[in-house]
Amino acid sequence: MSSMVAAIEKMVYRFGKDLNEGSAAMRNLLGGKGANLCEMSEIGLNVPPGFIVSTQACKQFYKNNQTLPPELEPQIIEALKALEKNLGKGFGNPDNPLLVSVRSGARVSMPGMMDTVLNLGLNDKTLLGLAKASNNKRFALDSYRRFIHMYGNVVLNIPHYKFENLIEECKQKHNKKLDTELQEAQLEELVEQYKALVEQDSKPFPQEPIEQLRQATCAVFKSWLSPRAKTYRKLNDIPEAWGTAVTIQAMAFGNMGEDCLTGVAFTRNPSNGEDYLYGEFLLNAQGEDVVAGVRTPQPISEQALISIQNNSVQNSRNAAPVSLEKSKPKIFAELMAVRGILEKHYRDMQDIEFTVEKDKLFLLQTRAGKRTAQAAVRIACDMLERGQITQEEAIMHIEPQSLNQLLHARLDPNAEKKLLTRALPASPGAACGVIVFSADEAEDKARNGQDVLLVRTETSPEDIHGMHAAKGILTARGGMTSHAAVVARGMGRACVCGASEIVIDIENKAMHVKNVKLNEGDFLSIDGAKGEVYIGKVEMILPELDQYFHRMMGWCDKARRMAIRANADTEKDAQLARNFGAEGIGLCRTEHMFFEGERITDMRAMILAQTPQEREAALAKLLPMQRLDFVKIFKAMDNLPVTIRLLDPPLHEFLPHSEADLQALVESLKPELTLSLSEAKARTARLKESNPMLGHRGARLLATYPEICRMQARAIFEAIIIARKQGVKPLCEIMLPLIATKEEFDRLSEIVRACAEEVQKEKKTEKIQYKIGTMVELPRAALLAEEIAESAEFFSFGTNDLTQTVWGISRDDAGSFLQEYERLGFIPHDPFTTIDRRGVGALIELAVKKGRKARPDIKLGICGEHGGDPRSIAFCEEQGLDYVSCSPYRVAIARLAAAQAAIMESKQNTTQHEKTPHQQEA
Amino acid sequence: MSSMVAAIEKMVYRFGKDLNEGSAAMRNLLGGKGANLCEMSEIGLNVPPGFIVSTQACKQFYKNNQTLPPELEPQIIEALKALEKNLGKGFGNPDNPLLVSVRSGARVSMPGMMDTVLNLGLNDKTLLGLAKASNNKRFALDSYRRFIHMYGNVVLNIPHYKFENLIEECKQKHNKKLDTELQEAQLEELVEQYKALVEQDSKPFPQEPIEQLRQATCAVFKSWLSPRAKTYRKLNDIPEAWGTAVTIQAMAFGNMGEDCLTGVAFTRNPSNGEDYLYGEFLLNAQGEDVVAGVRTPQPISEQALISIQNNSVQNSRNAAPVSLEKSKPKIFAELMAVRGILEKHYRDMQDIEFTVEKDKLFLLQTRAGKRTAQAAVRIACDMLERGQITQEEAIMHIEPQSLNQLLHARLDPNAEKKLLTRALPASPGAACGVIVFSADEAEDKARNGQDVLLVRTETSPEDIHGMHAAKGILTARGGMTSHAAVVARGMGRACVCGASEIVIDIENKAMHVKNVKLNEGDFLSIDGAKGEVYIGKVEMILPELDQYFHRMMGWCDKARRMAIRANADTEKDAQLARNFGAEGIGLCRTEHMFFEGERITDMRAMILAQTPQEREAALAKLLPMQRLDFVKIFKAMDNLPVTIRLLDPPLHEFLPHSEADLQALVESLKPELTLSLSEAKARTARLKESNPMLGHRGARLLATYPEICRMQARAIFEAIIIARKQGVKPLCEIMLPLIATKEEFDRLSEIVRACAEEVQKEKKTEKIQYKIGTMVELPRAALLAEEIAESAEFFSFGTNDLTQTVWGISRDDAGSFLQEYERLGFIPHDPFTTIDRRGVGALIELAVKKGRKARPDIKLGICGEHGGDPRSIAFCEEQGLDYVSCSPYRVAIARLAAAQAAIMESKQNTTQHEKTPHQQEA
Repeated sequence: MSSMVAAIEKMVYRFGKDLNEGSAAMRNLLGGKGANLCEMSEIGLNVPPGFIVSTQACKQFYKNNQTLPPELEPQIIEALKALEKNLGKGFGNPDNPLLVSVRSGARVSMPGMMDTVLNLGLNDKTLLGLAKASNNKRFALDSYRRFIHMYGNVVLNIPHYKFENLIEECKQKHNKKLDTELQEAQLEELVEQYKALVEQDSKPFPQEPIEQLRQATCAVFKSWLSPRAKTYRKLNDIPEAWGTAVTIQAMAFGNMGEDCLTGVAFTRNPSNGEDYLYGEFLLNAQGEDVVAGVRTPQPISEQALISIQNNSVQNSRNAAPVSLEKSKPKIFAELMAVRGILEKHYRDMQDIEFTVEKDKLFLLQTRAGKRTAQAAVRIACDMLERGQITQEEAIMHIEPQSLNQLLHARLDPNAEKKLLTRALPASPGAACGVIVFSADEAEDKARNGQDVLLVRTETSPEDIHGMHAAKGILTARGGMTSHAAVVARGMGRACVCGASEIVIDIENKAMHVKNVKLNEGDFLSIDGAKGEVYIGKVEMILPELDQYFHRMMGWCDKARRMAIRANADTEKDAQLARNFGAEGIGLCRTEHMFFEGERITDMRAMILAQTPQEREAALAKLLPMQRLDFVKIFKAMDNLPVTIRLLDPPLHEFLPHSEADLQALVESLKPELTLSLSEAKARTARLKESNPMLGHRGARLLATYPEICRMQARAIFEAIIIARKQGVKPLCEIMLPLIATKEEFDRLSEIVRACAEEVQKEKKTEKIQYKIGTMVELPRAALLAEEIAESAEFFSFGTNDLTQTVWGISRDDAGSFLQEYERLGFIPHDPFTTIDRRGVGALIELAVKKGRKARPDIKLGICGEHGGDPRSIAFCEEQGLDYVSCSPYRVAIARLAAAQAAIMESKQNTTQHEKTPHQQEA
Repeated sequence: MSSMVAAIEKMVYRFGKDLNEGSAAMRNLLGGKGANLCEMSEIGLNVPPGFIVSTQACKQFYKNNQTLPPELEPQIIEALKALEKNLGKGFGNPDNPLLVSVRSGARVSMPGMMDTVLNLGLNDKTLLGLAKASNNKRFALDSYRRFIHMYGNVVLNIPHYKFENLIEECKQKHNKKLDTELQEAQLEELVEQYKALVEQDSKPFPQEPIEQLRQATCAVFKSWLSPRAKTYRKLNDIPEAWGTAVTIQAMAFGNMGEDCLTGVAFTRNPSNGEDYLYGEFLLNAQGEDVVAGVRTPQPISEQALISIQNNSVQNSRNAAPVSLEKSKPKIFAELMAVRGILEKHYRDMQDIEFTVEKDKLFLLQTRAGKRTAQAAVRIACDMLERGQITQEEAIMHIEPQSLNQLLHARLDPNAEKKLLTRALPASPGAACGVIVFSADEAEDKARNGQDVLLVRTETSPEDIHGMHAAKGILTARGGMTSHAAVVARGMGRACVCGASEIVIDIENKAMHVKNVKLNEGDFLSIDGAKGEVYIGKVEMILPELDQYFHRMMGWCDKARRMAIRANADTEKDAQLARNFGAEGIGLCRTEHMFFEGERITDMRAMILAQTPQEREAALAKLLPMQRLDFVKIFKAMDNLPVTIRLLDPPLHEFLPHSEADLQALVESLKPELTLSLSEAKARTARLKESNPMLGHRGARLLATYPEICRMQARAIFEAIIIARKQGVKPLCEIMLPLIATKEEFDRLSEIVRACAEEVQKEKKTEKIQYKIGTMVELPRAALLAEEIAESAEFFSFGTNDLTQTVWGISRDDAGSFLQEYERLGFIPHDPFTTIDRRGVGALIELAVKKGRKARPDIKLGICGEHGGDPRSIAFCEEQGLDYVSCSPYRVAIARLAAAQAAIMESKQNTTQHEKTPHQQEA
């Protein structure tokens, strides 16, 4: 071929014994299904031969205004010819017809895509040929009616129910229960009815096999842009550009008689990970029957049978099931051998489809099997211990988010549920309790032993005691990082946020969702992992952590590079975090300490103080409480780093909201504080802010009220001394919040350092060791990281606030449009959940570089909500951060995700390293 | 000297005829005063010789824990010796003593610094020598009492009044009015009393001249860190590191008799710029007498005399003044010659100090003279037209901010005023009127012809009509870019913001400031340029623009590179802006159009609509109004670009705040909209946001309510067609607000483009020309500018919001701490006023680079408040932006500032260009 003529693009790839043109590695081009068929064929498994139309052809199809590219058909015909030759059958040959299945196959499995078309190639003439060749007219008719149905539905868009109605009528008319009981004549009648239906709904059923194939191929391509495929892609971050492949494969018939069957199997139990073949089969059936539930399938192995019998109520209508292991031991043995080969080859548990045609086993599909978290952990452990996979592989096999299933209670998936509304999955776990609308009510009812669910428009720091008392929290407003969400995750409470359909009528203690009205005391259940709200009580499944889980975590701890810390504000949380494996506290929010019990009154006295003396007096009362908190936390985190953030929120957050509460406060503050109600009101009004998130808080607060900074620093240093005396080794890191300028950092750290010197002198003690650093949570701090790092010993990226400022989105208000934004595809995912690499991430990368430039050994961590998100943890690993900090309940997830990230990163580096000499040659 | 021995640092520089070691260029080292003494000496003017202790010595002084560096004294003594030799006098010589003045001198003039010490070197012995040498004992005693007073005050910190009391007693006792009338014996008595005072207050008056000099030098150095100097520096952005120099100069005596005098003069009238020597002198006096006002000085020139007589009430107590021009024509002629030499040499109007000793003229200081804006403009024009300076120099001579004096009314500086409180100078100009506390009241009273001043805690868009009706606005909360400030500047209303001392008692229609209570209807005056609030009526001076101003603006327009646009939302503002010289609209905020009159009701109907039909109906009503607005604006800006920003603020801003108003609204919306009050309340509640600034607004609003976007686009395109038919050439630029992702931009611009096509087709008209671009006002947009610029045809930097997000500071809440922050030196200046180059600026620079990378011809502008700030305009010039856009009232300032920026930038480039070959050699 002259170089002047462009090579014709190869769009068709064959597979089958000795004629494989693909492999598992080619899934981008051939789709997962097709690539694995090539691979199975290559490793000697019995796969009916066929060929794959590549994803590249799909792209051309869309480029060509939804027409098949002209160069495709010759390639298909060539592949068909080879297939005919291979099998000794002819496509459309009325004597010995070749029938094929046509299936879609994207790069990753997409359940939302089109179904299979089986038996393609049948028409009125080849029907006879098939009957003759198989010597089984009933089988041929059964295949034809299936084909017309599937083609009619998938290619011609005729609704399923129209075909189902006809077969149902037919069965009733002839008094049959099952489709297998239909006789030849009845099937013949049905085929005619089906053809009439097609003609009536569209046009005569196409008799030309190549035209059938053409249309089926087009239909598969078109299904790529179907609404359900689009939705699925959005939900799963799958790019539209990928396209789908089409797999065309010679039929193996599971519906030729009692020596035929079709089945699906997992190589291990996908529910709990137990080590046996698990699956179902149907005698005398084709693939879709197993899924469609027209008959009840039988279990494959004896163990699966036992497991099913243990776990489900026996359906009394059917006869006792018989396993394939018992009924067809030879086939079972063959399947067991296949299981061994596949697991060894793919190094993972597989989900397979197979057909037995006249006692001969054909494999139609294999892919990594979906599994529960419990199963995933156990399978990985088992395979590792039997030397089937490496430790790295074992770690990579677990989806970190799935561990939530193990760590939190969840709603019983088999329980009956009545969905009330859907909103944001703000904090995992499930909860069920009676509705209360106030924090006080929550506490009261909980004290009386009731399980309560706190329902609020939104929560504020004043609600903390109620959130703590509640089993779960449901809010009408607020996003994934709203106050409710953050606090709930920290406390390990289930939480659903931003349920904007809920309107709360606080006066009448009721809530309305569309037409449903619920009152205080009514039961409600929430699934915080899915963001679902159900009316009434729903049965729950409690979490359990088994030996496999602990073993897995141990390997993760060896594999990861980053430390995992927790965000914890109390001794209890610190202890909990340590139990979950946290190696320190990355964020201890001191303000939460001011809300507890009587402290809030002293805090309020401090805020309302009108003279420095009054303020100092109030601070003097707060000091010992705060000091004691720190001592306890240092003890719980003995010899582990504890990052304490100085006061961050604006002062008005601590003040009462109603005038009555304010009046009560003014009274309670007497005689120490003698301000009038109107003075208190004026002060409250002055503190009010339009945008508290961007208000007088953090470093600004500490800078303008240095006495607060001094009190906190003193409490910390005195606590260090006390803890040391008790034999504890406190490793304290003091964090200045919301720094925007080096000047702020320098002046505040000067106050802190001076305080350390003072306390040292007073207590005549050895030098107090501590680090002082800052939260990088404003774009300006990131942009000026180099000069700030001259003074700051560590940076902790506060990615919640950084995301808020980089995007200009308040997390408390995001609920109203961010979901819509995700739904409309404006953003791939909620940037408050998974770090926005290109925006926020770019700024972090800049700050990391600048910070290291000024201070090569600067300690870097992250303490925003993203610290517990696996994709964000991968980003942190890439940036080489020293640690991530997350809520105690996410520590296990973070340990796993950090291990995976370290493995990925080291692979990346190896690959790059290997590439380098090659690139240099080029 | 061996290279092993470090050279001793030169810290003393001499000046005087033939022995100059410095020049005007050395002001960093010698201070402005010293450097100019060298320079005057160099160009042959008669300057008493002396020497300067450098700023470097000051730095060493502070390094050495406030002691003089040891290497300094030998250098001082050496310089003293040379001075003695030069003048034939001896420092401390009892026969013929050398006396010196000691003055501070920083790099720039700092009125807050220490005063001069004159006659240093006198003691009980040299007193006699001076008397003998001058043959004038009265003169010697007069000099001695002055010296003790000044030294006592400046070096020994004895309060002024103690000396003043003594001289006052002395005058009374001897029945004298003026100090010149005191006789020898009386002065002798006074000297003894002064010495006793010093001894009593500190220790005996030092008799050793070198010790006097040492202490005076230290005192000057120490004065650099005095509170008033610190305050002055903070206010004027002067770095503390600069330090001050000390000028030590031989005395020339203006107090030797009637042939002696001392004076200060401006080479032109600093009030109006008229071209004559302007100043005052005192016979037989020393420098400080002119300023201290012990006697009334006489005018220097006849013209100055006339001007004074025209402008002030003659002080009847004194005799009619006689000018120096009349009384001492020879001296006057010499001064006129000096004036010519100085103006020619310095190429600017000068402010000089001089002394005549026995009819001999000595120059003691020269510096660029401070002047009013009117004078500055006239002087620059005059000097340019007479060829004294170039056009570039003329432009550089005007301080852009000072033009506010010409453009706005101001309080009469000579009027009596009673300061109530100070706050932020939010919008220049002055206003005086009766207090009102609501927008409606403002409108009512204004309609009745009263001047009103609107006083609010803060303003919101609902107050616009009241702000418009008021002469000025005063708020208790909010910063330089709060709603009140931004709107007031746009309207050209005077405004003082964030007056946190004010507590408004809205129920009783009163306000309290500390102990002062003011009621509605009381008069109040504000100075929006200074941020001052006065009780009662204060006289005002109205603005006038003269021929000089217009000439100057013409030169600026030639010199500048950037276009100047205005932010204007109405036809009226557009017209006003065009009159001020605006070359287009850089920001037309469409939301302001929805607040006017009946429109707000339709807007609210749109917001409260419960079905798409209801919403479309409300939008259909808004469309023609908006279209008409655009037509009018296009007409006003015929053939000039108009950037229209689509709806930006969150919807709740348009809804009523009280339940009563909401109820009224619900009624008024019937029958078109049939929602109940509770539905309206629920909708209002759902729209409420915790941080509206970071809420559901801008692109997010348009994306989730695309029908609003479509209505606005249609109104624009239909307006373009109508305007074209009327012979107008609309140059429309559609701006999408608050873009964070390219996806937002692409989808919204798709809606706009589709709308253009639609309107084109409907109206069967030629292609509608317009550009579509975005406001870059979020860090994310800046970080991803490259990909956004693939779609956006222009960027307009919205630096208000960008500053808010980069700093994490809400401009509405900034008032509470930003002033404090500036005062404490945490930030050099309010980042909402002058662009924060290192943070916000760095991000803009990045966006500019990225934007140009994707689209080399991308149009770049700025439309935040910074568009009218000279320092920010300089930044925009450095970035090569195409235009700045500011409020109409700042257009003139921007034209000047842009011209200056272009001149500076071209100088910078020339310098760099010149440097390059040199650097390459190195």
